[in-house]
Amino acid sequence: MFRSIAVVGATGAVGTIIRQLLEDRKFQAEEFHFLASSRSAGSELTFNGKTYTVELLEPAAFDNIDLAIASTPDDVARDFIPEAVKRGCTIIDESGYWRMDPKVPLIIPEVNAAAIDGHQGIISSPNCSTTQMVLAMKPLHDAGKIRRVVVSTYQATSGAGVAGNRDLEGGTRANLAGEDYKYETFAYPIAFNCIPQIGSAKYKGYTSEEMKMVYETQKIFGDESIQVCPTCVRVPVANCHSESILVETEKKITVEEARELFAATPGLVVMDDLENQVYPMPINCTENDDTFVGRIREDISCENGLAFWCVSDNLRKGAATNAVQIAEYMTNGKG
Amino acid sequence: MFRSIAVVGATGAVGTIIRQLLEDRKFQAEEFHFLASSRSAGSELTFNGKTYTVELLEPAAFDNIDLAIASTPDDVARDFIPEAVKRGCTIIDESGYWRMDPKVPLIIPEVNAAAIDGHQGIISSPNCSTTQMVLAMKPLHDAGKIRRVVVSTYQATSGAGVAGNRDLEGGTRANLAGEDYKYETFAYPIAFNCIPQIGSAKYKGYTSEEMKMVYETQKIFGDESIQVCPTCVRVPVANCHSESILVETEKKITVEEARELFAATPGLVVMDDLENQVYPMPINCTENDDTFVGRIREDISCENGLAFWCVSDNLRKGAATNAVQIAEYMTNGKG
Repeated sequence: MFRSIAVVGATGAVGTIIRQLLEDRKFQAEEFHFLASSRSAGSELTFNGKTYTVELLEPAAFDNIDLAIASTPDDVARDFIPEAVKRGCTIIDESGYWRMDPKVPLIIPEVNAAAIDGHQGIISSPNCSTTQMVLAMKPLHDAGKIRRVVVSTYQATSGAGVAGNRDLEGGTRANLAGEDYKYETFAYPIAFNCIPQIGSAKYKGYTSEEMKMVYETQKIFGDESIQVCPTCVRVPVANCHSESILVETEKKITVEEARELFAATPGLVVMDDLENQVYPMPINCTENDDTFVGRIREDISCENGLAFWCVSDNLRKGAATNAVQIAEYMTNGKG
Repeated sequence: MFRSIAVVGATGAVGTIIRQLLEDRKFQAEEFHFLASSRSAGSELTFNGKTYTVELLEPAAFDNIDLAIASTPDDVARDFIPEAVKRGCTIIDESGYWRMDPKVPLIIPEVNAAAIDGHQGIISSPNCSTTQMVLAMKPLHDAGKIRRVVVSTYQATSGAGVAGNRDLEGGTRANLAGEDYKYETFAYPIAFNCIPQIGSAKYKGYTSEEMKMVYETQKIFGDESIQVCPTCVRVPVANCHSESILVETEKKITVEEARELFAATPGLVVMDDLENQVYPMPINCTENDDTFVGRIREDISCENGLAFWCVSDNLRKGAATNAVQIAEYMTNGKG
């Protein structure tokens, strides 16, 4: 057990869910601290029935903290984390900044919890779009060795933070009223539209969000031979990312085998009965810690291909839940 | 030139656009007729500045019609078309009913106009999700022979007709107001949701909409060796289907070659500059007769793969425009 735990970015969209999960899952520690930028520092919040004042995120704040779960922008994570580690604090980081650092384990507890052991003060939690895909890939990779993945995403506005959802709601209301709306987060209206760009142009015509799905997948599996072709698209959905995934395996996996493999994997739930219109969708997966798979079928275009549809709450398993599970694993060895 | 032209289903979503296109494109005929079911028959509409009474869709109506462009449900097309053909009328049919009949050519004028010549009274126009994909595939197939396509769609509610858009708007308004809404067309709320089923369960876990993308593609190219793995998804967009497409070709096609090939294809427009956030989206492609491609990039998961994003107005090139182009081709040999 860690004596003193902090949530960094405690008042943000993901930080709020981290607090809720720590309460719901009865996370044990002697002391809890809640840190945020100067915008929120000084405000009060309630945790486990007790009132806490949000502390300012600054190096000295980590003097008495053993473990921090942090959800901040990349540039904030770049600056504060080395200072926190210097002061003996271990950080579970949600940001993208440290994920590809060779000294930093990139962890999905159900997939590669053992890799936590070698950490040097920083443990990264993967990008939301990667986490649900890799979790679904895991049992297939173990059973048949995945050679290639083709994935197209349908990503929710909550992935762009609270302002993303404000844009979706504000833009949609304005559209229906025939009024103008100035988007804060998105380069184009997201109301009743699809935007085929998340992040910036990164590599050979792929975006930074897409390349995260390539690099992070290879790092988590420790296998750079797994090829990934991603297309990341923002859709007018408030919460939960959906993914159309096709995997090609070395050894053929039948639909029945895949269904059993998925169902036996902790954190995965199979919702798969097309005849009866049963499949995961954002509306039936939101506010759930699990990752859901359905539309499982043989790829009719390739011998050893398997296609499926995967939905997960990007703020939960895609972010807060995964980080809290890492903290739980480190506390008591279970994810 | 045909003496007498009819629009069947003249008051529906697609029929309305067909009328508009016939006006805009100055389609020449001595007589125009507008047919619809008993629900709309007897109502009046204006065409080329003249008032017409909508006639009842019944066999006798075709006694004096040479060419009809029809947009009706499949069961209506099944019943009325043989009667119309018996009376000497040629039908350009938007429905799904006749498309896979070996005696019926399935036509995208830019792709296989020559196949019109062998028709026996019925010419089918492909499903909207197929048309835009096949049009984009055409120059790549000619240049490098496509072996396989993996496609995930982001389909608009207008594909489910006027009631589909009523559901999107009504459902969204209700959602924002915190009220209930009873959907007419969709099995689940489409507001702020993705539904990974269009059509019914058809073949090995694929839906009827998905299998249309397989069978129709093979028929239009006259090549059953082209393998297609489709995932069709309804998204909360009112109009324009988007598609994330990956093709594998026998001969490698570079990004630069693909861009030139696309740009040289009638009906295709390249919008492709990720650095400057230029790519097609539903909001910038709606009410346009062209099909748009962007996000063109090498598939980083496979030697001869090419990935791109394709958007088209599903009521225009996906339906009305394609049918009117077939009629134009038959009238004066140009699409």
